[in-house]
Amino acid sequence: MTQTTRVPTDTADAAHTREWLRRFQRVRRASEALCAPLETEDYMVQSMADVSPPKWHLAHVSWFFEAFILTPYLKGYETPDPAYDFLFNSYYETHGKPFPRHLRGTISRPTVKQVYHFRAHIDREMERLLSAPPLEHLDEIIDRLEIGLHHEQQHQELLVMDIKHILSCNPLHPVYRDDIRSRLLANAEQAPTAPAPVNNEPRWHRYAAGVRQIGADYPTQSAREHDGEGFVFDSETPRHRQYVAEFELADRPVTNADFLKFIEDGGYTRTELWLSDGWHLIHQTGWQAPEYWLRVEGRWHTMSLGGLVPLDPSAPVCHVSFYEADAYARWAGARLPTEAEWETAAEDQRPTGHFVEDEVLQPQASAATQGQGPQQMFGDVWEWTGSAFLPYPGFTPLEGSLGEYNGKFMSGQMVLRGGCCATPGDHIRPSYRNFFPPQARWAVSGIRLARDV
Amino acid sequence: MTQTTRVPTDTADAAHTREWLRRFQRVRRASEALCAPLETEDYMVQSMADVSPPKWHLAHVSWFFEAFILTPYLKGYETPDPAYDFLFNSYYETHGKPFPRHLRGTISRPTVKQVYHFRAHIDREMERLLSAPPLEHLDEIIDRLEIGLHHEQQHQELLVMDIKHILSCNPLHPVYRDDIRSRLLANAEQAPTAPAPVNNEPRWHRYAAGVRQIGADYPTQSAREHDGEGFVFDSETPRHRQYVAEFELADRPVTNADFLKFIEDGGYTRTELWLSDGWHLIHQTGWQAPEYWLRVEGRWHTMSLGGLVPLDPSAPVCHVSFYEADAYARWAGARLPTEAEWETAAEDQRPTGHFVEDEVLQPQASAATQGQGPQQMFGDVWEWTGSAFLPYPGFTPLEGSLGEYNGKFMSGQMVLRGGCCATPGDHIRPSYRNFFPPQARWAVSGIRLARDV
Amino acid sequence: MTQTTRVPTDTADAAHTREWLRRFQRVRRASEALCAPLETEDYMVQSMADVSPPKWHLAHVSWFFEAFILTPYLKGYETPDPAYDFLFNSYYETHGKPFPRHLRGTISRPTVKQVYHFRAHIDREMERLLSAPPLEHLDEIIDRLEIGLHHEQQHQELLVMDIKHILSCNPLHPVYRDDIRSRLLANAEQAPTAPAPVNNEPRWHRYAAGVRQIGADYPTQSAREHDGEGFVFDSETPRHRQYVAEFELADRPVTNADFLKFIEDGGYTRTELWLSDGWHLIHQTGWQAPEYWLRVEGRWHTMSLGGLVPLDPSAPVCHVSFYEADAYARWAGARLPTEAEWETAAEDQRPTGHFVEDEVLQPQASAATQGQGPQQMFGDVWEWTGSAFLPYPGFTPLEGSLGEYNGKFMSGQMVLRGGCCATPGDHIRPSYRNFFPPQARWAVSGIRLARDV
Amino acid sequence: MTQTTRVPTDTADAAHTREWLRRFQRVRRASEALCAPLETEDYMVQSMADVSPPKWHLAHVSWFFEAFILTPYLKGYETPDPAYDFLFNSYYETHGKPFPRHLRGTISRPTVKQVYHFRAHIDREMERLLSAPPLEHLDEIIDRLEIGLHHEQQHQELLVMDIKHILSCNPLHPVYRDDIRSRLLANAEQAPTAPAPVNNEPRWHRYAAGVRQIGADYPTQSAREHDGEGFVFDSETPRHRQYVAEFELADRPVTNADFLKFIEDGGYTRTELWLSDGWHLIHQTGWQAPEYWLRVEGRWHTMSLGGLVPLDPSAPVCHVSFYEADAYARWAGARLPTEAEWETAAEDQRPTGHFVEDEVLQPQASAATQGQGPQQMFGDVWEWTGSAFLPYPGFTPLEGSLGEYNGKFMSGQMVLRGGCCATPGDHIRPSYRNFFPPQARWAVSGIRLARDV
Repeated sequence: MTQTTRVPTDTADAAHTREWLRRFQRVRRASEALCAPLETEDYMVQSMADVSPPKWHLAHVSWFFEAFILTPYLKGYETPDPAYDFLFNSYYETHGKPFPRHLRGTISRPTVKQVYHFRAHIDREMERLLSAPPLEHLDEIIDRLEIGLHHEQQHQELLVMDIKHILSCNPLHPVYRDDIRSRLLANAEQAPTAPAPVNNEPRWHRYAAGVRQIGADYPTQSAREHDGEGFVFDSETPRHRQYVAEFELADRPVTNADFLKFIEDGGYTRTELWLSDGWHLIHQTGWQAPEYWLRVEGRWHTMSLGGLVPLDPSAPVCHVSFYEADAYARWAGARLPTEAEWETAAEDQRPTGHFVEDEVLQPQASAATQGQGPQQMFGDVWEWTGSAFLPYPGFTPLEGSLGEYNGKFMSGQMVLRGGCCATPGDHIRPSYRNFFPPQARWAVSGIRLARDV
Repeated sequence: MTQTTRVPTDTADAAHTREWLRRFQRVRRASEALCAPLETEDYMVQSMADVSPPKWHLAHVSWFFEAFILTPYLKGYETPDPAYDFLFNSYYETHGKPFPRHLRGTISRPTVKQVYHFRAHIDREMERLLSAPPLEHLDEIIDRLEIGLHHEQQHQELLVMDIKHILSCNPLHPVYRDDIRSRLLANAEQAPTAPAPVNNEPRWHRYAAGVRQIGADYPTQSAREHDGEGFVFDSETPRHRQYVAEFELADRPVTNADFLKFIEDGGYTRTELWLSDGWHLIHQTGWQAPEYWLRVEGRWHTMSLGGLVPLDPSAPVCHVSFYEADAYARWAGARLPTEAEWETAAEDQRPTGHFVEDEVLQPQASAATQGQGPQQMFGDVWEWTGSAFLPYPGFTPLEGSLGEYNGKFMSGQMVLRGGCCATPGDHIRPSYRNFFPPQARWAVSGIRLARDV
Repeated sequence: MTQTTRVPTDTADAAHTREWLRRFQRVRRASEALCAPLETEDYMVQSMADVSPPKWHLAHVSWFFEAFILTPYLKGYETPDPAYDFLFNSYYETHGKPFPRHLRGTISRPTVKQVYHFRAHIDREMERLLSAPPLEHLDEIIDRLEIGLHHEQQHQELLVMDIKHILSCNPLHPVYRDDIRSRLLANAEQAPTAPAPVNNEPRWHRYAAGVRQIGADYPTQSAREHDGEGFVFDSETPRHRQYVAEFELADRPVTNADFLKFIEDGGYTRTELWLSDGWHLIHQTGWQAPEYWLRVEGRWHTMSLGGLVPLDPSAPVCHVSFYEADAYARWAGARLPTEAEWETAAEDQRPTGHFVEDEVLQPQASAATQGQGPQQMFGDVWEWTGSAFLPYPGFTPLEGSLGEYNGKFMSGQMVLRGGCCATPGDHIRPSYRNFFPPQARWAVSGIRLARDV
Repeated sequence: MTQTTRVPTDTADAAHTREWLRRFQRVRRASEALCAPLETEDYMVQSMADVSPPKWHLAHVSWFFEAFILTPYLKGYETPDPAYDFLFNSYYETHGKPFPRHLRGTISRPTVKQVYHFRAHIDREMERLLSAPPLEHLDEIIDRLEIGLHHEQQHQELLVMDIKHILSCNPLHPVYRDDIRSRLLANAEQAPTAPAPVNNEPRWHRYAAGVRQIGADYPTQSAREHDGEGFVFDSETPRHRQYVAEFELADRPVTNADFLKFIEDGGYTRTELWLSDGWHLIHQTGWQAPEYWLRVEGRWHTMSLGGLVPLDPSAPVCHVSFYEADAYARWAGARLPTEAEWETAAEDQRPTGHFVEDEVLQPQASAATQGQGPQQMFGDVWEWTGSAFLPYPGFTPLEGSLGEYNGKFMSGQMVLRGGCCATPGDHIRPSYRNFFPPQARWAVSGIRLARDV
């Protein structure tokens, strides 16, 4: 997939693979750290069809290394159980028939302990492979390893989202981590009880019209300063030209206080604000507020990984569907940005938002000074764009089963950009294209406004 | 509910409650023994809407004692968590809104450990109550305790059925208990590989026409030889007259070998054998054999609590729906018995089948000599009758929430009689009316034929 | 099916068949008379899955004569279109795959005119057959003709119910016949605006306990006074013994005024009054009153075949489901009668209710003097019983496809007795067993109370 | 909505409105001509939720003139029935609650005759209005009239598609027009029985990269040569820049012969060719060929408005979903064009395909000489593009209820371009954006391939 030309000196290779091994170990540990606060029972729950049990996530990302690296490239590799290849295949139809997604929560064996054993087994075998890799396949192994690590990071984000949903479904409002609860309650204490009128309207940054370069190419080896840099998914390629008309972008995401004004202004009851599908959806579901919002004794609260906490008016609104984001934008006399606009604005931005490393796992108000360009483009909340998730001009999927990675989902979904408070900081970049169906709300999805000039 | 007249001598009462406490402890231990082979993860699974997670069963039967005995009658009783009253209420709408049944598998907290603590708490508090019961409520307490114990025994049977379903959904075919596997494999080795033509057609026992006494009355205290004897559920009352025409009943349940002949004769493809609803059902579901049957390398196997084992041709067929039972009977030139016929025949029979205490949890061929009346009327498989589950003439439900026990389900269900290999032996009696919807197959449900003379 | 011994004198046969031909013509004309007020468009509508387009009814009952009489017995019979055998077969799976029921409203051809031509064709060919019947098959022809006529009468009743549903779905509230509207409005004017407190509580008739003869046998030819008398459906056979305990039966059906008191007393909100399935159903559907009731400017109205008219408080309540009938009875401290009880009470009753010949097609208050036994047992409203529709002891379905007539529906349905305002008066008898699923409301189904002594 | 400046001379106005009146009459007559071959019964059918009964179409397009022109602008206008405003409103939520779409087939009244009376009433009243229009609203009236006429033309196309579906559902395979049948059979006779290997691979036309002008602006009055010219829907506006990379476009649509090769090459069984949603869809539905294809005695046939006819291998394939179009393109080593590419190629093309005026209502092979640029860009089949139906940069919907016209459907749908054999020839233009959900097949939707250079 990458057209690298590599000087195969043993020493360079050895350093190279050692570095990759360290990255591998770091990413693998991060997944387990996210699950450390869980009870065995939590690992089992599929609280809705979109959610996977944490146990499944842990096993599936390991299966990925088994199926695409160890089985083809590690001589004598043996799986702990051949059935795992069926149980933990997510959707790779060309690899074999996957186990039905909506039944993942019904599989009690292998147990959590066995899944951790599976992980340890994969870790050991990957170490064995990388200690003495078959040089004729080294490029391919590293390419797949790199995908495998980004794949595991994607599942780390899903783990956070799914754990939040799993615990939020429980009427006991369990707390995932007490320190998160303490931080969120401290935030809430500082915030005014009734959401204050937010006088600080967003400021608008203007971008000139022109043909822009959008997307990314697979990096050549020589272009990378160090290992792991410059990775992109197939869906971000190729870098290509797009004409972008003049536009303005808000300097901050829409906040909870902003969104409350929409609600209080009858936003959920005014048909003219909604796409037809969205209008029918909110009537079917009865949605009157973002996911996880709960009115307790006259005050809005939200479920978080610190349990039920008062809503922080200054934090970016999250857990809204595309339809709600779109209706909000229409109400505000604006619109959602296209992904080309977003990428244009993001290209030179440094991250000023919160990532999974900040360990609060809930979008926070930014401390950044205004006026230095759009803030929080990366982190806190994924930002819905007005663009459907479609192939870029010239897009070619990877060969083989990995070609199923992104391309086959290019239908019926909308693009989100920028990463969120559950995203590993080194997983994100301006060209990154996330995508969800327009009705999804359990992702950490928020809103940034754009407008025509 | 019972019209007892009791001589309230302290000593008699004390012995009486001691005896009840022992029964309570015995039943409570039996539930936990059934769960002993489970992994924590198994406790969490709701493999279909009809199945409840074992954890839920353990908590729910404890909640029953809390809601109906401890809270009303034990002064100063405190619950470990007030939310349990919502989470573990099954369907008592008059007691409060129950937690949605199909979401039971999404509740990871309380954990299994906490549920065992809840059980221990209930046990301790029940002991405290029964050590010094308020004499003015003693009758009512004992009445409710008796129901609570039979209720828990019903859930023991459901636990076995649900555990079987949970493990059977898993493509790894997990084994619940190795000793069960060994016994079933031993049985299978003795059986011929190809199901032999069963020459031993069932023999028919004939019963004369006449007005019969069917059902049971609540026992008076004086009529009971010892505590706990003579219990009946509300749905079995009152004892009443029914005219039963002359009929014949088969001396044994239909076996797997019998049912295979039905399959091989195109039973599932011949519309004239089926009730209309059944015909549509088997086309929707694609059923071609009983639940849990699997053809492996040309030989029929079945999932059991010993994992996947070869089908034993001489064992009673089980896990068939009412529709399959009815179609089989029509194919065989017979019909299902009515519950009055069944009870008529069962009245004088001693149990010759297998119960939960036999610890094989799979129907077995009977060793009983033929010719001594119908065999295995009790145990091995619940036997579908041709009777809908309807109130007996003069039926009155219990007062209060316990009145929801059986009466409100008297619609859309068929009666089964006799108990099965998962039933506690002291839980069953000739007048016992079990019921399931006609499409249910995860119960240990089988077939006994009747015919007109 | 009947075991007749017949003296085959030509003259007797000729008179016999002439009489049958006259009956045939009478019944056929009655179907067309019911459709006379319809617009072509009305003939096409399937307003819900249970409803069939009137065009389909007209064609299907004709197909019955074609499939079961003309094709087998009339030499050289030719169908107008072989596809009709597929299009107009309702559910006779042994006769060939029927056209999917829920799509009947999508078939615009044959047109209404062509269906009337089909009817005329069948009529002519039946006349041809009956003018010179093959004597060796005469008995069988007459037997099937008799069934065919009763079958057509059943569909006449369905036609009325379906037309009512079709027109009632239309927000324009179309009127089927103006004279019906006039009569119903005249009734309404006499009735008080606010439903008066009905002081006339029903009187109760008591019936002694005993073994009763229930059901009917196929009549022998000799036992019939004249042709057509004594017909019974297979489901009513055989006449058999049942023990019926002492009971009381109300002398009149429950009225709209009665049912309003149930509503006003919170009947639809009190869980303890409802079967579990019914309770869930009314929450799913939002039912708060019988089908077709509509509150207009503070006053209850009902859709009728005379359009929307004010509710007549003294008329029997109708269009209630079994669950509502059952809940009402529980609220009233009574219960629904069993079918054996109903038949016991009906056996000696003369019809005092309204039938299709009364041409009002809406239940009416009875003018009959009280105190002469239960009134309106026949006519006005079908009365839900507490009995499931199950085979009688000794029941044997007819041979061949006609064996599908009733037997295959003996699952999941409840029995109703007595006929209604849409029933042909000569179609009904004490042993007649009608049946509907417990949730059905578009039938003219009402309530009569029974109680234990 | 249009920013016209108009010189209000009476004579010019009079000529102007006379010309519009003639257009109005022409379009109105065309709708009725399309329905002329129907039986009354055909007008009633809603053969699936997406289809509307022809009667409804005829009434709805008339209601549009009533609701948006007559009621606001014709003094003293009276509707034949106020309920029509509810019954025949399609989806204008801001105008009032529309009657549920899926129940349109249940409304038998108004009858077909009454609907024609309604049409005549609207026609008369529109003539009255246009004979003496209120000059201060003339611009707005003409603007709305123009939309109304294009709206009615859209429904003419839907009428053809819906009538085809309605008749095709009927196992009798009714013929809509005999002359169409004759023409299609004549075509089929000329075609080889077995689809010949199509040696004529499509030729590819290449288009240079560059910034293109896409879409259209509302025309100014002065820019129109004559009345009615230059109309565009809101969704086509504004004309804007897009960068289009170099690409190639096939000179002809994919034919039935081409598509047969895809089928015979296992196209429907190869997961790697399909979008994930499409793969699941074809498994749910069992699709193995385009809609309306039927294999009769070893030869492919298709339902048409001439009944069931042998498949013409040289005609463009139609009635394929977006998923099938996309899978076909992938199989062929190509892709679907974007709408900007399509519009780029179409801009200078003259129509060479078949329109509704050709009166065959089935796509036909083109007689056009190859090599003169892409053929049949307009007419025969709507061509699926790879573009989602989204707002153009700077898009603003119309004011008021007409703003619901297109904008609210910009979610979950794909764009098709070019018109089809059911499209009025004067209704189409290069910038026209049609749209359907990706699973839709009852539209006359086909495939044209594009590829990267």
